Amino acid sequence: MAGLSRRLADFAAARHWQPFHTPKNLAAALSVEAGELLEIFQWLTPEQAAAVMADPGRAHRVRDEVADVLAYLLQFCAVVDVDPLTALAAKIDRNELRFPVADAAADRAAGGWAEESTGPSDDRAGG
Amino acid sequence: MAGLSRRLADFAAARHWQPFHTPKNLAAALSVEAGELLEIFQWLTPEQAAAVMADPGRAHRVRDEVADVLAYLLQFCAVVDVDPLTALAAKIDRNELRFPVADAAADRAAGGWAEESTGPSDDRAGG
Amino acid sequence: MAGLSRRLADFAAARHWQPFHTPKNLAAALSVEAGELLEIFQWLTPEQAAAVMADPGRAHRVRDEVADVLAYLLQFCAVVDVDPLTALAAKIDRNELRFPVADAAADRAAGGWAEESTGPSDDRAGG
Amino acid sequence: MAGLSRRLADFAAARHWQPFHTPKNLAAALSVEAGELLEIFQWLTPEQAAAVMADPGRAHRVRDEVADVLAYLLQFCAVVDVDPLTALAAKIDRNELRFPVADAAADRAAGGWAEESTGPSDDRAGG
Repeated sequence: MAGLSRRLADFAAARHWQPFHTPKNLAAALSVEAGELLEIFQWLTPEQAAAVMADPGRAHRVRDEVADVLAYLLQFCAVVDVDPLTALAAKIDRNELRFPVADAAADRAAGGWAEESTGPSDDRAGG
Repeated sequence: MAGLSRRLADFAAARHWQPFHTPKNLAAALSVEAGELLEIFQWLTPEQAAAVMADPGRAHRVRDEVADVLAYLLQFCAVVDVDPLTALAAKIDRNELRFPVADAAADRAAGGWAEESTGPSDDRAGG
Repeated sequence: MAGLSRRLADFAAARHWQPFHTPKNLAAALSVEAGELLEIFQWLTPEQAAAVMADPGRAHRVRDEVADVLAYLLQFCAVVDVDPLTALAAKIDRNELRFPVADAAADRAAGGWAEESTGPSDDRAGG
Repeated sequence: MAGLSRRLADFAAARHWQPFHTPKNLAAALSVEAGELLEIFQWLTPEQAAAVMADPGRAHRVRDEVADVLAYLLQFCAVVDVDPLTALAAKIDRNELRFPVADAAADRAAGGWAEESTGPSDDRAGG
């Protein structure tokens, strides 16, 4: 991953793109690309979505959008000087304490750990 | 990164979250988290945004949202069986051909490589 | 709708928020709020999502996020001087020509008219 | 606006798109389109963004994406039976109480009213 970050930095520098690569612009670009990944799935039934990689055209788009999301995430992390692997390891550590396996709340959280801070638990999925 | 992917898979499995972790749901969650990262910056001036990590509260939020974005990206990649590092390396290879350094179009692209497929070049930033 | 736009403009002016209400910031805020609306649904099954308004807590969040999306859309339109109703009427006119009812392509488009410009038709949903 | 909602409903019905128009899919589509609106601005400087409508190509894209966002917002509201104008009027009423003009907190909120529920106030813009 460090090698890819370096290639991305060299790529941008060679094209004089650094002035555009502010944290705000890169966060916007990351969000836009995540939307393009979601676009592939937006009208698909769960069955079609599960088989998305069996369609060569869609499989190519998925790999392409994954690459774009990762590219902007790495470039964002470079300009704010955050190591994404360290950040994720620290978050998993915290969440292992917050969502104990034996706790029914872990099941109630129903799929994700990230959204619990934005609303009361009874607003969320799972029930 | 492989180790983090495994920890995420174990975390979800221990809490019976796999049925929720469809490609479509994970793509939606990735997009939602990218939006939360952008939210930190939405009202900031370029100067404030450049200094975002000097504010401990904001710096913590940035690391936390980076972790969430990476967590959902890795989990998405696991369910569709895509290696994100390979996908990104392949995209950099392609883009080195598409945006030659000597070509003025590279400068015109002005910041990003991903959006060129969604509109004519004169619709884009930079000029 | 004109009355609501005026109330939003007065609200922002009374709180000295206009300097923050640039087109770029408002477009970011609109995207962030649309993500928060999606967040309500991200882990829901199609059945749960269809019954979302039967849960008072979720129904309140839905109305709240709809209000936020519309608020930022109207404020964005005010600063770029676009009438959203005229823009939508013009787009429906264009799309009635582009997706004739008798044309099988209309069914192939499978759900949405907006995404066709971002990829070849065989990359899209429906099939 | 009621007339446009009816045209959108007729348009979708004539093309047999209703099965795709679930609340979850329409919320995803709304988020994707809001991302496409943001994409126009992602690399623009504040000065370029302020002049976006002076460029005919960009102005057309802005109107087009505004139309798409409004189309999906109205279709989402139709399937969940929410009146967006009523929802917004109710939210303005609530926010006039929550952000009194005389209160310094209104200025601290710095641009937006929607994000205050997702983090402590000192995490936010403005200061």
